[in-house]
Amino acid sequence: MGQYTAPLRDMQFVLHELLNVEGEVKQMPKHADLDADTINQVLEEAGKFCSEVLFPLNQVGDREGCTYAGDGVVTTPAGFKEAYKQYVEAGWPALGCDPEYGGQGLPAFVNNALYEMLNSANQAWTMYPGLSHGAYECLHAHGTPELQKAYLPKLVEGVWTGTMCLTEPHCGTDLGILRTKAEPNGDGSYAITGTKIFISSGEHDMAENIIHLVLARLPDAPPGTKGISLFVVPKFIPTAAGEVGERNGITCGSIEHKMGIHGNATCVMNLDGAKGWLVGEPNKGLNAMFVMMNAARLGVGMQGLGLTEVAYQNSLVYAKERLQMRALTGPKAPEKAADPIIVHPDVRRMLLTQKAWAEGARAFTYWSALQIDKELSHGDEGERKEAADLVALLTPIIKAFLTDNAFESTNLGMQVFGGHGFISEWGMEQYVRDARINQIYEGTNTIQSLDLLGRKVLGDMGAKLKKFGKLVTDFVEAEGVKPEMQEFVNPLADIGDKMQKLTMEIGMKAMQNPDEVGAAAVPYLRTAGHLVFAYFWARMARIALDKESSGDPFYKSKLATARFYFAKLLPETATSIRQARAGSKTLMEVDEALF
Amino acid sequence: MGQYTAPLRDMQFVLHELLNVEGEVKQMPKHADLDADTINQVLEEAGKFCSEVLFPLNQVGDREGCTYAGDGVVTTPAGFKEAYKQYVEAGWPALGCDPEYGGQGLPAFVNNALYEMLNSANQAWTMYPGLSHGAYECLHAHGTPELQKAYLPKLVEGVWTGTMCLTEPHCGTDLGILRTKAEPNGDGSYAITGTKIFISSGEHDMAENIIHLVLARLPDAPPGTKGISLFVVPKFIPTAAGEVGERNGITCGSIEHKMGIHGNATCVMNLDGAKGWLVGEPNKGLNAMFVMMNAARLGVGMQGLGLTEVAYQNSLVYAKERLQMRALTGPKAPEKAADPIIVHPDVRRMLLTQKAWAEGARAFTYWSALQIDKELSHGDEGERKEAADLVALLTPIIKAFLTDNAFESTNLGMQVFGGHGFISEWGMEQYVRDARINQIYEGTNTIQSLDLLGRKVLGDMGAKLKKFGKLVTDFVEAEGVKPEMQEFVNPLADIGDKMQKLTMEIGMKAMQNPDEVGAAAVPYLRTAGHLVFAYFWARMARIALDKESSGDPFYKSKLATARFYFAKLLPETATSIRQARAGSKTLMEVDEALF
Repeated sequence: MGQYTAPLRDMQFVLHELLNVEGEVKQMPKHADLDADTINQVLEEAGKFCSEVLFPLNQVGDREGCTYAGDGVVTTPAGFKEAYKQYVEAGWPALGCDPEYGGQGLPAFVNNALYEMLNSANQAWTMYPGLSHGAYECLHAHGTPELQKAYLPKLVEGVWTGTMCLTEPHCGTDLGILRTKAEPNGDGSYAITGTKIFISSGEHDMAENIIHLVLARLPDAPPGTKGISLFVVPKFIPTAAGEVGERNGITCGSIEHKMGIHGNATCVMNLDGAKGWLVGEPNKGLNAMFVMMNAARLGVGMQGLGLTEVAYQNSLVYAKERLQMRALTGPKAPEKAADPIIVHPDVRRMLLTQKAWAEGARAFTYWSALQIDKELSHGDEGERKEAADLVALLTPIIKAFLTDNAFESTNLGMQVFGGHGFISEWGMEQYVRDARINQIYEGTNTIQSLDLLGRKVLGDMGAKLKKFGKLVTDFVEAEGVKPEMQEFVNPLADIGDKMQKLTMEIGMKAMQNPDEVGAAAVPYLRTAGHLVFAYFWARMARIALDKESSGDPFYKSKLATARFYFAKLLPETATSIRQARAGSKTLMEVDEALF
Repeated sequence: MGQYTAPLRDMQFVLHELLNVEGEVKQMPKHADLDADTINQVLEEAGKFCSEVLFPLNQVGDREGCTYAGDGVVTTPAGFKEAYKQYVEAGWPALGCDPEYGGQGLPAFVNNALYEMLNSANQAWTMYPGLSHGAYECLHAHGTPELQKAYLPKLVEGVWTGTMCLTEPHCGTDLGILRTKAEPNGDGSYAITGTKIFISSGEHDMAENIIHLVLARLPDAPPGTKGISLFVVPKFIPTAAGEVGERNGITCGSIEHKMGIHGNATCVMNLDGAKGWLVGEPNKGLNAMFVMMNAARLGVGMQGLGLTEVAYQNSLVYAKERLQMRALTGPKAPEKAADPIIVHPDVRRMLLTQKAWAEGARAFTYWSALQIDKELSHGDEGERKEAADLVALLTPIIKAFLTDNAFESTNLGMQVFGGHGFISEWGMEQYVRDARINQIYEGTNTIQSLDLLGRKVLGDMGAKLKKFGKLVTDFVEAEGVKPEMQEFVNPLADIGDKMQKLTMEIGMKAMQNPDEVGAAAVPYLRTAGHLVFAYFWARMARIALDKESSGDPFYKSKLATARFYFAKLLPETATSIRQARAGSKTLMEVDEALF
């Protein structure tokens, strides 16, 4: 039940009208020839695949889940394997990959748009190719030429998939205490032994081989995070000819029963002297893995956006169809037994909240993906550095802010359905259950907040934050004098000022007491997320104002949503700033025994 | 997995130290002899039953769910039936019931405390006796003497259970359009035909008979809510001797697959000329049903409190045991591989949020139950009226504020567990799924907000709100001069003032445009909820300050939680007031086609 249609019009608005990607890629030698038509065609094709093939499998995937038959064999839900075959045959895994290994070499922002749609249609399924793409990026950045030759073409083609194996039963956030061991075999390979848990896509029946990227300790490794190395551990060891060879000693011991994403196998992986090869330098595995984790964090943000969009679409359809009560201002559909519930102000609040979170997230993440392309491919080194700093700053905001908003949005989507939202058949409660994991994995949202405030902001004395702040102040200066933009620019300038003051205040307090960072981090990230959203909503409002007279209702809708955002969502910062400023005292003074 | 221990110390604090129930009941002739020891013994026994019998069935109930075997037969999860037998044998159904029908005649506040514990231990199970108690109250208030004689003793004993049958496929919130028909049989009974959905506890194997209270239309009924009558429709028609007789034409057609409360059967009930008897006057069924709905709304608030408490208890245990990372201020458990996560400020925020919501809700709901006892049993008519007004005002706040807080709390409890929280085995994700329905059923939280703002506050020009306001200002005047109370009384007085101004502002705007009520209602209720919580937290802080020097760490803990509430949770009103004031413009100006 339910439906999903790729929001192509809004995607095109963001890519072409807001971001002018066709102009931007001209500064990137690799992508200079890419034109808008090609991008649009790719998105349209992807949208069809998502609506027609993936979305119909979303509910069945949830209902059936994955099956562990013993002996390490995992079966994915009916249809998953066939859909993956189609995905591979259409060449989608190669979209954003390096042509040297068979990729299509399209920019990150195109791949990112693809992932929004895949996640809207079926998050659990999308995690199989999603993790593969992360493994591709990690090996592409850190693998030896031999490893790249052995693995990248198969990952790009999609016939092999990938995973990341970090977590162990006693450590998730705290990788410094991990225990999996890697002992040199003397032939350049290592024998790896240990247990990994929560390995998404760890075992399945969709690909002929699975390439695990595994964190482990060398025998002489120093303790803590400085003694962790990264290894590639294939399920089947590739032959010299590059095909599937000998079965390796890494097997799935069981799969988890969990709240959501039932269609994705969450595996316990047992490594029993499994053969692995070092990726990157010894004891610097976390650095190498961070390439994959940062990609994954952006990917989780796209899961948040995808679920926000699909929840919005379905609750909107219901709100227009379901008849219940009359409008407070008198009947709007007197010929019917009752009015459609979209006449009620609070139903509109629930719909517009989802819409504002979705469209704001789309602008923010597509822009961020464009920064990644700049970082990787811009012709000018200064631009590359600038973009890299912005991506580093904003990655934790993308991950945490968007997934918190997605959990709110999927819950609002469900709430619009009333009691029917709680019933599995309608599909809305699955979005809530699927959305919930996104706030937890790839670093909980608390960890993202600490990364933002402690490392990205205070860690360089606010230098990266100032770079984003400059974008805001430039826009405010350019638009602040225009009367029609007052309603957007004034609150944007205001939250910009408040953010600056808040950052300085916390920075001062943190010098006295490091717990102030931990106490302020979560509401600080919410505030920062709103600064970002206020900036993009003001920019989108600017365009919509310019084009409103065109008669295209799209711009009226955009403007109305911008106004809603500033009136109803941005005020969250009145609370988050107070919470951040309230500091650590009431948290830390309480003795543990008093809880 | 997991654990639950009845929070007897805090329950006793609320009943005896905060509310002085022993003194209060002296003004109620019915209850004048009740002493604190008796109350405490009852609660202690109930706590044991909940920990030892019900809690161990909570996860199995979720995993197994109810089974519909066809032919109207529903089987509850393993152990449910036996636990219910024990519950009946111990006499718990009779606790708060009228001695005339075999009840123990204890006050509502004792029964309420029982329900907190039942819900902490097993919400899905508790809905069976919970709905029975609602049916008891409705028949006790509105049934004819014959109906009371036929049904009340069995409901009090618990050998028969009850339901409320309101919702139909096309109407939930909007009962005015319901279609189920009741035609007179000529013998004083009616033949009732129609389909009811979402009937909790509608069919099961735990009791020998099920007594349905069904809304339906008489042949000559006027359209809308003024044409709805209430009927009692038993599964088996009682014989003259009061035992189970002929099978009636009301059968379960199927049960729903849903997000949570799997252990409770959510039934489609088909009525095919089922025999029913009128309860209350013809066409005034909604009035009669409101007795049951108001009881149910308080009951849903207790479900919220119950889940908040059990999520808190379990995440606290985990936070003390799970080792991960070092404290930002340096190692706290240097002898271990890492510090317990309770050293981290944001983990403490998550724990204290749950604790403050739970203890605030306990004070608020126990006090509210005491008002119900005053309403029913106080010797003075003025006091009865006063209490009735307060209960009417506060019922929607109990239902919506507490269930929203419970959804937040269960999610925070789950978040403390990180990835393990998402895994079913740990039990935390079940609390989230169970908590979610409480925001929807018995009137969605939007409906509660409209009831509060539209009917209870603006409907009498703020008269009832002023009564609660008087309690606040009396306390502020009495305590405001004391230096040690400044930190609590100042923000309480502040939110009281703001609430008053906000109410007047919305009232003025609503006279111009009724949509202003719908637009402001949800954030208005959040603001009102905080006024109530700030009041009770200030009162509890007063007692804790008085007794802090006793050396009992309980008071230090209470004071710390009060400070946390004022520093970190009350600031939500900075946002909710802004949202409420932002009005209906950005919601209603958008044409439906622009969504």
